[in-house]
Amino acid sequence: MSNHNQGGRKAVIILSGGLDSTTCMGIAQAKGYKLYPITFDYGQRHRIELDNARAVAEHYGAQGRHKVIQLGFLKEFGGSALTDDSIAVPDTTKAAEHTAQPESDIPVTYVPGRNLLFLSIATSYAEAIGAEAIFIGVNALDYSGYPDCRPEFIRKVEEVMAVATRVGVEGGPIRIETPLTEWTKAEIIRQGNMLQVPYHLTTSCYNGQAEACGVCDSCRLRLKGFAEAGSADPIAYRARH
Amino acid sequence: MSNHNQGGRKAVIILSGGLDSTTCMGIAQAKGYKLYPITFDYGQRHRIELDNARAVAEHYGAQGRHKVIQLGFLKEFGGSALTDDSIAVPDTTKAAEHTAQPESDIPVTYVPGRNLLFLSIATSYAEAIGAEAIFIGVNALDYSGYPDCRPEFIRKVEEVMAVATRVGVEGGPIRIETPLTEWTKAEIIRQGNMLQVPYHLTTSCYNGQAEACGVCDSCRLRLKGFAEAGSADPIAYRARH
Repeated sequence: MSNHNQGGRKAVIILSGGLDSTTCMGIAQAKGYKLYPITFDYGQRHRIELDNARAVAEHYGAQGRHKVIQLGFLKEFGGSALTDDSIAVPDTTKAAEHTAQPESDIPVTYVPGRNLLFLSIATSYAEAIGAEAIFIGVNALDYSGYPDCRPEFIRKVEEVMAVATRVGVEGGPIRIETPLTEWTKAEIIRQGNMLQVPYHLTTSCYNGQAEACGVCDSCRLRLKGFAEAGSADPIAYRARH
Repeated sequence: MSNHNQGGRKAVIILSGGLDSTTCMGIAQAKGYKLYPITFDYGQRHRIELDNARAVAEHYGAQGRHKVIQLGFLKEFGGSALTDDSIAVPDTTKAAEHTAQPESDIPVTYVPGRNLLFLSIATSYAEAIGAEAIFIGVNALDYSGYPDCRPEFIRKVEEVMAVATRVGVEGGPIRIETPLTEWTKAEIIRQGNMLQVPYHLTTSCYNGQAEACGVCDSCRLRLKGFAEAGSADPIAYRARH
């Protein structure tokens, strides 16, 4: 919080409209960055997130710098339950804890190469506008088995960016900031509440209805996080376990 | 050439419609791969390349597996002479030799993060269809100062893919094949002629007219390559130096 209001510093924020990425908006603002949110429309089922992302960008006064990027080809490629209508999203009762999940147990909701793609596009945007950092709300504790949420993945992408980009070659590489990576969901929510992050505008449900389902992996993690943080989740649920 | 016709092996080919990527089609076919060409429409000035890419895909009987990916946002981001109408493409007489160009001398035709983005999307496609390799026609000798054409960049992307993707985590990482990387333009053309690569369908001109200009960096490298290979360039030029 010590770098408050250092005028020209810019950061690109990968903003899905969910709890984690919205917390990243609050953290980047508190660090004094001018916010350049970027949201990806890749035919995901939870399309309500796109509206949430727009509302969050507006909340932070960043709607004029908010890019919504169409990636319809990801749906065309197929291969994930999040974009492929022929694969069902699991409604599991045993998957609320993921901390020690083995690496080969990658869930069907994995979208091939998604975060690599998101970070590549964010890099292009960051380089074009002269941003010094990209914020992404990945989390190592409850990464749910996605290979591209792990810290070693993020470090490797930074190494690529250092050799791939103009700014990397010419001196000042773009940093990837992952402020949530070591935090539990409860810690994220506590930090977010201190920063007055607008959680009432966010949804985390994989099924993407107007009311969150309360039973998918993502809803369970969120509800457990609010409970452990000792605070009320301001959004509506169809069911709570 | 020893792996001719091994049935099910698939490769994604990043196909611009220019000389180098078209040579990659011929090399991948000769290695026995089923070809899955992918072409990126990012608002580049040389839009004639998109038509060339379609013609090349058809020449190889791969039109049904050819993906043309819209990346209009790259033009929206700006920052390159190849996509930004406010930046002129240099018509230089001193830039025909690039071998020893210093790293900081990045030309205005550089598109921020382009090859990282192209390889990320190709990775998503490769993973979705189960391809084992991605071919990209980057070249270390005449890379024209682009940071993302260097071998160290390609190696770093392979490292990222090994940790970022399902197949990488589960055992068989996707390889990035760069068969042209150590070849001069003349060596590329000699190899391509042996494989009957359809150079009459390709254009390399940065200015993207129906007739190649003959004076931009890309045209000069191509003409010099055909001259050194002792073969005639089958396409038409407005001027030749």
